Amino acid sequence: MTSPATPAQAATNTRTRLLATARQLFALHSFAGTSLQMIADRLGVTKAAVYHHFKTRDEILGAVIEPAIEDLRAIITGAEAQRGHTARAERMLTGFVDLTVRHRELIALLSNDPGVAQIINTHPDLADLMHRPLTLLSRGDEADPSARITASVVLSGIAMTAASPLQDDLDDETLRRCLLDTGRRALGLRRRPAA
Amino acid sequence: MTSPATPAQAATNTRTRLLATARQLFALHSFAGTSLQMIADRLGVTKAAVYHHFKTRDEILGAVIEPAIEDLRAIITGAEAQRGHTARAERMLTGFVDLTVRHRELIALLSNDPGVAQIINTHPDLADLMHRPLTLLSRGDEADPSARITASVVLSGIAMTAASPLQDDLDDETLRRCLLDTGRRALGLRRRPAA
Repeated sequence: MTSPATPAQAATNTRTRLLATARQLFALHSFAGTSLQMIADRLGVTKAAVYHHFKTRDEILGAVIEPAIEDLRAIITGAEAQRGHTARAERMLTGFVDLTVRHRELIALLSNDPGVAQIINTHPDLADLMHRPLTLLSRGDEADPSARITASVVLSGIAMTAASPLQDDLDDETLRRCLLDTGRRALGLRRRPAA
Repeated sequence: MTSPATPAQAATNTRTRLLATARQLFALHSFAGTSLQMIADRLGVTKAAVYHHFKTRDEILGAVIEPAIEDLRAIITGAEAQRGHTARAERMLTGFVDLTVRHRELIALLSNDPGVAQIINTHPDLADLMHRPLTLLSRGDEADPSARITASVVLSGIAMTAASPLQDDLDDETLRRCLLDTGRRALGLRRRPAA
């Protein structure tokens, strides 16, 4: 038996359902092709009920991507806390691969959507947030073009590959292992000995 | 002294200037934000003169990307003609790096432009054309997820990195050398001995 939801729980549930619905509609019709009205209709609520949670479509997109941004922030902080360039690069790579596999559908949605790129580009922290993984993977050699280029190929290649529909047939664990192996080889990081 | 242009030469010149102008305007205002009228105005010709060469904006985009597509086609054919998986992968990687560096501005323009992605996705040969380099870099092991993932990370990472504004400070030769080194390392291809 489930106890009846408190008003606060009900609001949280509506917000969660709203975000899940928005995500489905963005994937179907693109971000630009989805209106607040369409989200309300699909949820079976009034547009006013949507407004109660989000004033604009951009705010909904912000809330949809927030969990991935939070994960990225935590991974970067965790990697920066490691001692030594190699341990930091290793932690950043592992965390980034986990993140892209966990959020592969979201990244696919974002990278194929006309209109999303511009909103992402105007996100206040995002430029900084994308720069710190590059620094970590460059292992203190960011002035060296070769270290910087390798870091960039690894990060962008992993994100694009995880999000590609060509990988839809692969389970998360296989995708994770293959991306990690490729990243390690490109960065010249040794494979960790089996525990 | 220059001899006066024949009518055929004049038409070719207008077409060339038209494409160069379109490219500038796409970079400034995005593809979706550029009208045929804006192209005509910038060129100082009538819209009818533009129509004489191209019926739609999509046709102009097609003509802008055609040289890069032709280059890609030639590289793939050249690589497929090599004997042995390693020679084919080596030729494909080298050619792809050359191509992305040579067309880095165009790739930047295409990858940052909302609206372009959809048009590219509907280009008849392009899906096939993007698949063949993956096959070549997988060295006959395309069924093996690990070979396929590595090929995808290398190709998408190289294209994204060459097109990134973070690389604007690098000259073509440095960029080319660094991308090639990264690709070789990721793919496990040996560095070619100095000639």
